Amino acid sequence: MERIDDLQCKGYRIIQDTEAFCYGIDAVLLSAFAKGAVKKGNAVLDLCSGNGIVPLLLAAKTEAGKLVGIEIQEEAASLARRSVTLNQEEERMEMLTGDLCQIEELRMKGGERLAHRFQVVTANPPYMQSDLQNPDSKKLIARHEILCRFQDVAKAASFALDSRGKFFIVHRPKRMAEIISILRENKLEPKRLQMVHSYLNGEAKLFLIEAGKDAGVELRILPPLVIYREDGEYTDELKEIYGIAYP
Amino acid sequence: MERIDDLQCKGYRIIQDTEAFCYGIDAVLLSAFAKGAVKKGNAVLDLCSGNGIVPLLLAAKTEAGKLVGIEIQEEAASLARRSVTLNQEEERMEMLTGDLCQIEELRMKGGERLAHRFQVVTANPPYMQSDLQNPDSKKLIARHEILCRFQDVAKAASFALDSRGKFFIVHRPKRMAEIISILRENKLEPKRLQMVHSYLNGEAKLFLIEAGKDAGVELRILPPLVIYREDGEYTDELKEIYGIAYP
Repeated sequence: MERIDDLQCKGYRIIQDTEAFCYGIDAVLLSAFAKGAVKKGNAVLDLCSGNGIVPLLLAAKTEAGKLVGIEIQEEAASLARRSVTLNQEEERMEMLTGDLCQIEELRMKGGERLAHRFQVVTANPPYMQSDLQNPDSKKLIARHEILCRFQDVAKAASFALDSRGKFFIVHRPKRMAEIISILRENKLEPKRLQMVHSYLNGEAKLFLIEAGKDAGVELRILPPLVIYREDGEYTDELKEIYGIAYP
Repeated sequence: MERIDDLQCKGYRIIQDTEAFCYGIDAVLLSAFAKGAVKKGNAVLDLCSGNGIVPLLLAAKTEAGKLVGIEIQEEAASLARRSVTLNQEEERMEMLTGDLCQIEELRMKGGERLAHRFQVVTANPPYMQSDLQNPDSKKLIARHEILCRFQDVAKAASFALDSRGKFFIVHRPKRMAEIISILRENKLEPKRLQMVHSYLNGEAKLFLIEAGKDAGVELRILPPLVIYREDGEYTDELKEIYGIAYP
């Protein structure tokens, strides 16, 4: 079933298919984490773009000159294209159906939108490693590394980025050490890291990382981002990110 | 000038030279982070051991069967040996003067205490990279990577550890990405990570990591460790670690 959700930002909306993968807090936190790096006129690429939630939020929140998404599942990319039209963002945004493992070929085939390098690349990639051979579910593909591994995502990001460009991801702590190694192997040096905890006294459930293409070694670890207060209400920081009005 | 400090734990004391490197919060946090892994009878090795603060704290707090420290600066190692005697721990503890870059040779020369593998290795290594060629200060050597780089520390730890043994370090966030890569290159897989913040709303100033020799990929990120409350007092967690009585 399809539904249209309000993005709580300048009237932007997204079309979602409730039987496929609907966006979660990860995409919202990723776009909030990345938005400060998107300067006026910048080109932004989103990998594993799904229904386009991250570029839609960045369209709403930044003055990016161009926002491109790549998604391997045609149905999700097609929904994303309809959301682009719904928000009258055809000028700035383009959602491509394609395999990021083939980003070099996609570029050579002359996809105009991929012809130049990007200042910012974002990705909310599948979190889980998988041995599944015959996935039949859209959700499985979105959540498991069936069609691309993190190595492929990092390689594509490194290829697409300008030297000194920035790559932003959200991922699970479980795999953070491996992900940091893979980023560095692809000339993407971690520069800012933020842990996301549901509650202050619990383990982190997500992390956000900014890596700089060809950047020097110097990481900053930001204050932890906490989702809920002790009483179960969203923290003020979360409310601000979600654009929820609060006193 | 020498002074004797109380370690706030079972009457243990340490002899420090105020002109050399006196221990700081790093060593205290490291021993608190590592102590849970030290089981009765375990062999524990401390690299870059300085005046022996980490093995002294672990002697006070655990039932380790053997605690060995390696320190390259003879004066510091000699102080550490005197602290061992002061605490009547000659049975369990030994502080060796030696270069961890030569740990394999040290072992072959038949240092009896290095003849077996260790279940736990700890290190509070020099934090800063350095190009200094003629260091004349003991503090410089303790703080800068003049006589060993982190690569050497990780290699020595990996060599000394039992398969499935655990390596604990404290270090600066700046270099965390690099340190994670180096650990993994030495078959030391990060398993637990904790950020240390002076204040909850500030960036991390230190991190603690536990890496497992030959372990699988699965990292847990613990709740942040915060040193000061908003009013500038130590947090309860810090007071507990320092062994300060509080209501």
